[in-house]
Amino acid sequence: MTDDVLPGEDALIAKLAGMLPAPRQTRLTIGDDAAAIPLPDGNLLLVTTDLLMEDVHFRLSWGDLPALGWKALAQNLSDIAAMGGTPTHAVIAIALPPHWDPAQTTALYQGLAALASATHTDIIGGDTNCSSGPLVITPTVLGRVSPDELCTRSGARPGDALFVTGTLGRAAAGLRLLDAGQPAPPALAPAIQAQLRPQPRLEAARALATSGQVTAMMDVSDGVATDVHRLCRASRAGVVIAEDRLPIDPVVNAACQWLATAGTPANPVQLALAGGEDFELLFTAPPEAEAELRARIAPLPLTRIGSMVDPPDILLQQQTQTVPLAWGFTHF
Amino acid sequence: MTDDVLPGEDALIAKLAGMLPAPRQTRLTIGDDAAAIPLPDGNLLLVTTDLLMEDVHFRLSWGDLPALGWKALAQNLSDIAAMGGTPTHAVIAIALPPHWDPAQTTALYQGLAALASATHTDIIGGDTNCSSGPLVITPTVLGRVSPDELCTRSGARPGDALFVTGTLGRAAAGLRLLDAGQPAPPALAPAIQAQLRPQPRLEAARALATSGQVTAMMDVSDGVATDVHRLCRASRAGVVIAEDRLPIDPVVNAACQWLATAGTPANPVQLALAGGEDFELLFTAPPEAEAELRARIAPLPLTRIGSMVDPPDILLQQQTQTVPLAWGFTHF
Repeated sequence: MTDDVLPGEDALIAKLAGMLPAPRQTRLTIGDDAAAIPLPDGNLLLVTTDLLMEDVHFRLSWGDLPALGWKALAQNLSDIAAMGGTPTHAVIAIALPPHWDPAQTTALYQGLAALASATHTDIIGGDTNCSSGPLVITPTVLGRVSPDELCTRSGARPGDALFVTGTLGRAAAGLRLLDAGQPAPPALAPAIQAQLRPQPRLEAARALATSGQVTAMMDVSDGVATDVHRLCRASRAGVVIAEDRLPIDPVVNAACQWLATAGTPANPVQLALAGGEDFELLFTAPPEAEAELRARIAPLPLTRIGSMVDPPDILLQQQTQTVPLAWGFTHF
Repeated sequence: MTDDVLPGEDALIAKLAGMLPAPRQTRLTIGDDAAAIPLPDGNLLLVTTDLLMEDVHFRLSWGDLPALGWKALAQNLSDIAAMGGTPTHAVIAIALPPHWDPAQTTALYQGLAALASATHTDIIGGDTNCSSGPLVITPTVLGRVSPDELCTRSGARPGDALFVTGTLGRAAAGLRLLDAGQPAPPALAPAIQAQLRPQPRLEAARALATSGQVTAMMDVSDGVATDVHRLCRASRAGVVIAEDRLPIDPVVNAACQWLATAGTPANPVQLALAGGEDFELLFTAPPEAEAELRARIAPLPLTRIGSMVDPPDILLQQQTQTVPLAWGFTHF
């Protein structure tokens, strides 16, 4: 695929990357979940940054400030996990809305501090500003990985199986529930929590990376439909995904039933494929490694959702037909 | 000084820092220009992040997008310089205003790429988002320094002299000129350029750090009046600054004359002390090192502007009186 047929966000990033001087002291640069820099002891330093902005990535009306701090850090930690790495340090740049109370800022930091503590990530600095309007949080997270455990997007080969950890669609269903305009029943709370406080798959990622079986890995941040395109592009491979193998979370089906009665219908397969923000791990490995990999990450579910094939096919196998898999959500 | 008498921004940062778990793998954390992490070869990895937001730190109506990219990176590089370090890598998170043209984004990146190239800083990744309104740029810069060349804010001792590189007030004068509502005469362009495209003092900082004479150093980002308070607090020292020793740039005096005729008067001493964004180096060293340090950074000017004294005095010596030096600009 050439850059000019990429959707907006990916095309723009490819163009910007082309403007920059070629890096000299770097193992992996723009185009993976994190950059990787050689350390003097032979290990790799991982670096990733993700910006969260009010009314783009979240709404303050959701009312859970500690969750916002948590999520901002979580999605950066998920990028470190996707490389097979262990997070070590973070810096946090924030722009606080005008007239914010210090108590609101400390509430935000409670969530940051809780997740930093739980993942042994040292928050070592940052930048605190007053915003011209929206709340903005930009964490940058550093991590570490040995070169033989590094997982990139580019190693998938035809014949590999495509796997995903956990279940899909919960965070997207949670977003629809939060935006539905009326309170959802308590049974659907796990979907809302998945949207508000995603769990980065740090332990599962290490278990996979140390298996020596993973050929490519990334996290599901923009939805399997978009992210598998990125994995295929980086690996110069194709894929066939079986729609009936997608591990749609039971709460997603329940949420869709309720959303229909609330007048905001949603489709479970669409949420699972294109919803994004599940922060599960999408990875490839030889099919025969499945049992070992499942055992390594248990009790977290592992599902084989497809097979890598020769490029350029990127296909979705449905009940009665096989169709090109469209790019899902992109930011532009 | 206790935290509860600090002005808004510094008090908030002190409070947030107190909420975080104590870092374990870190040499220097929140409270200096950059954090410092031990590397396996004994050197220190420096990390700094600075967020720039439209209508807080700049206006798009200034019309120079490459300069914006330049400045966003420059002020992070200045933090690495202030630690005595050399920048190595950067990641850039941006949120682009709705309906921005790709040409505007590439213009922004031209400035980023130009300064990255000039300073041998590898831009290795980032995050590109659509904004809910204002343009936001958050670079995070990594650098390196040996422990014996590390310059912190905390080493100044009574008896040390206080120095500043270059001249003061240009960037603040430039800001007033840009906001004056009518075009300034060409002779005042250097002030505007100082605001739009600040020059991080990377070479001078290395020349000072390798001298072995510097006891404390930081960059002038919020103005000497505010920043010297921070240096004194970190060093548990006091200071007396001589107002008539401030190296006010000649263009600042010329700008103030024009601003008066334009109906927006400004005071040169106020701009030099409280204006900020000069990104010069403010540092302390034994008085007898002055000649050597001047030679090291020539032709960049070096000025001794004061002396470190016992705490808690933080004083400004004026022509006829000595007064407490007020905190200058803070973000809150």
